[in-house]
Amino acid sequence: MKLIDGGVLAAKGFKAGSVAAGIKKKKLDMTVLFSEYPAVVAGAFTTNVVKAAPVWWDKHIVEAGHCVRALVANSGNANACTGEKGTQDTQRMAAVVAELLGAESHEVLVCSTGVIGVPLPMEKIEAGIGSCVAKLDGSLASAKDSAAAICTTDTFSKEVSVELSVQGKTIRIGGMAKGSGMIHPDMATMLSFITTDANVEPAYLQKLLGSTVVDSYNMISVDGDTSTNDTVLVLANGASNSVVINAGVEGEEEFAEAFLYVHTELAKLIVLDGEGAGKFIEMTVSGAKTKEDARLIARSAISSSLVKAAFFGADANWGRILCAMGYSKASFDPEAVTVTYTSDAGTITVLEHGSPIAFDESYAKKVLREKVIRVQAQVGDGTESAIAWGCDLTYEYVRINGDYRS
Amino acid sequence: MKLIDGGVLAAKGFKAGSVAAGIKKKKLDMTVLFSEYPAVVAGAFTTNVVKAAPVWWDKHIVEAGHCVRALVANSGNANACTGEKGTQDTQRMAAVVAELLGAESHEVLVCSTGVIGVPLPMEKIEAGIGSCVAKLDGSLASAKDSAAAICTTDTFSKEVSVELSVQGKTIRIGGMAKGSGMIHPDMATMLSFITTDANVEPAYLQKLLGSTVVDSYNMISVDGDTSTNDTVLVLANGASNSVVINAGVEGEEEFAEAFLYVHTELAKLIVLDGEGAGKFIEMTVSGAKTKEDARLIARSAISSSLVKAAFFGADANWGRILCAMGYSKASFDPEAVTVTYTSDAGTITVLEHGSPIAFDESYAKKVLREKVIRVQAQVGDGTESAIAWGCDLTYEYVRINGDYRS
Repeated sequence: MKLIDGGVLAAKGFKAGSVAAGIKKKKLDMTVLFSEYPAVVAGAFTTNVVKAAPVWWDKHIVEAGHCVRALVANSGNANACTGEKGTQDTQRMAAVVAELLGAESHEVLVCSTGVIGVPLPMEKIEAGIGSCVAKLDGSLASAKDSAAAICTTDTFSKEVSVELSVQGKTIRIGGMAKGSGMIHPDMATMLSFITTDANVEPAYLQKLLGSTVVDSYNMISVDGDTSTNDTVLVLANGASNSVVINAGVEGEEEFAEAFLYVHTELAKLIVLDGEGAGKFIEMTVSGAKTKEDARLIARSAISSSLVKAAFFGADANWGRILCAMGYSKASFDPEAVTVTYTSDAGTITVLEHGSPIAFDESYAKKVLREKVIRVQAQVGDGTESAIAWGCDLTYEYVRINGDYRS
Repeated sequence: MKLIDGGVLAAKGFKAGSVAAGIKKKKLDMTVLFSEYPAVVAGAFTTNVVKAAPVWWDKHIVEAGHCVRALVANSGNANACTGEKGTQDTQRMAAVVAELLGAESHEVLVCSTGVIGVPLPMEKIEAGIGSCVAKLDGSLASAKDSAAAICTTDTFSKEVSVELSVQGKTIRIGGMAKGSGMIHPDMATMLSFITTDANVEPAYLQKLLGSTVVDSYNMISVDGDTSTNDTVLVLANGASNSVVINAGVEGEEEFAEAFLYVHTELAKLIVLDGEGAGKFIEMTVSGAKTKEDARLIARSAISSSLVKAAFFGADANWGRILCAMGYSKASFDPEAVTVTYTSDAGTITVLEHGSPIAFDESYAKKVLREKVIRVQAQVGDGTESAIAWGCDLTYEYVRINGDYRS
């Protein structure tokens, strides 16, 4: 597997067109992604009982097992809590795209992200769709525009793409995502769109996405809020003429690994761009009895407001970390825990087998003043581990979310 | 039932002595509470698997059903994550108090709150205990000192006391508590000590405390963190010569109501003094199918960082409230939800049966700029309701917790 350029258009047979439709002020806010061939689709959606209209629409398409031809997304308005009109607007978006592309409505996925509770400006949206379709293009620049068009308070757009070989055929997997508040385990205010030109067996793709989400998007947290619009969609159009990838097929493990890589890197980019985040925290829990224990402990630590505020203050406050591990509902022995902080400035162990280690506060500050901090917590002699990613809690987070109706 | 002065010493037969033992800088940081008669005790403790040494000690006393004579508490150091020495120090604190008061160690409850992971300064503690015992006194001033001595980052001390009549006998229930970060459902970084001179049947008292905690301390949140030291202790010494209060006894309902009142008011004071809190938010959920659904929905809304930041910004961002209700794991129909904000400046309904109501933004700002905001969410036509209390998320919260190793 190697990293390549191209984002969501890295894979063969995909094009995109993006415009500033006027939903946001003078910024790209709409994109249409088109597959030249019918694409198998898999999806993962918010667990929130309050789901935006487009989430219901996409969930239905995924569950029905339809192949799709296109995806339309807008930023600036989430079309959430918009009642019956919201549902009609989503259907209309799919219908307009389908008509322009000679497809059926149920072959068009729809995503919206942005403010909740405000009806979509459908005139702008419909005009925007027309402009997007007129601009469909497979270039690097087009992929970049598409990634920019789905952003809300994101400060940079997020693209990842890789190439690998499966039974001699080159296949590509690429994607784009947006954050950046309401980010929490169980999916986030987050859209993530992945394309691949591999041939993939539909049920296998859905199953693979399910297990991938658990170790990527579900292991990140910005603020503990799980949004109404979280959506991950994967389109596999077979344009590489690869074998049909399925469980047990030669090369399947490499595909699954590359697939997880793309999702995990996008998830990490979302955290790196968390609202107001100044630091990127990677928390590794090892020695757990079960994988789920390891996940629970890691997520609980990176989700704690007090832990996050301590990182903001570059404070080696391991007591808060241990405390957050303790209320994770996972089973472990506090007396067995060893905690180490690592950054480019060095490594410092602050707790060993449950006992505090005297440490040099000024050295600890130096380690924790870095932008990227790794925390390792060994919780016992079990064999299971997990990694979670989070960020610090800053004045800027409070400012953004006190000011901005998102 | 009427409100009276006296806090934790309002009930007959209790005395306290408090000193600045030097654990904190020049502030009251130790208190000994003494009951002239053996007192029945009930307790509720943190659910965190990482429990401070004194929590294990008190839990053992409560579970063994011993009567107690005294309680010793220090602030400035939580004696948490302190290993075997922490356990020995707790035992020693109990032994020193017991010896001075002519009691047994297992008749002395021990509580610590403050920084995690640092051994107790036992010389100061032992000297402090001696000074506290020498000062034992039942006055109003002594109660106030005792409430001050358990504070950490609290900006005011918290006392509540009431008087009621049960079968012609006057009985009193009073208490004191401390917050003020790590406050979340499942108990908080919080100590709450309640005394009563009622005669209370021990098993009934424990059961009553269990149900009381659910609707008081477990319905407040400051920051989503559940600490290692959370403890609620109730001492009933029978000094009023009341009948033995038990299920079915005449006056039991009045007692239970007063008991819940004292705990709930202390819980609300903790939120009012939440770290950095500028606003007090009361969230009432009604029309739920089950009581537990109502509790889950109310707690989820007041615990959301995004909801809290919106209150900081006086932003009528009901979308975030609905979103947080949606990930509460409770069952309700989003299309049935009506949301109303109320403050001293007025009332404004922003969502009615799931549909957004156009509202005057400047009027909404006026309503939400007040210090006390009530949110009412009607979630259906069920009969169950619950109230949760929280606060806003402020720059000050980030500052306190970025700076202070607590």
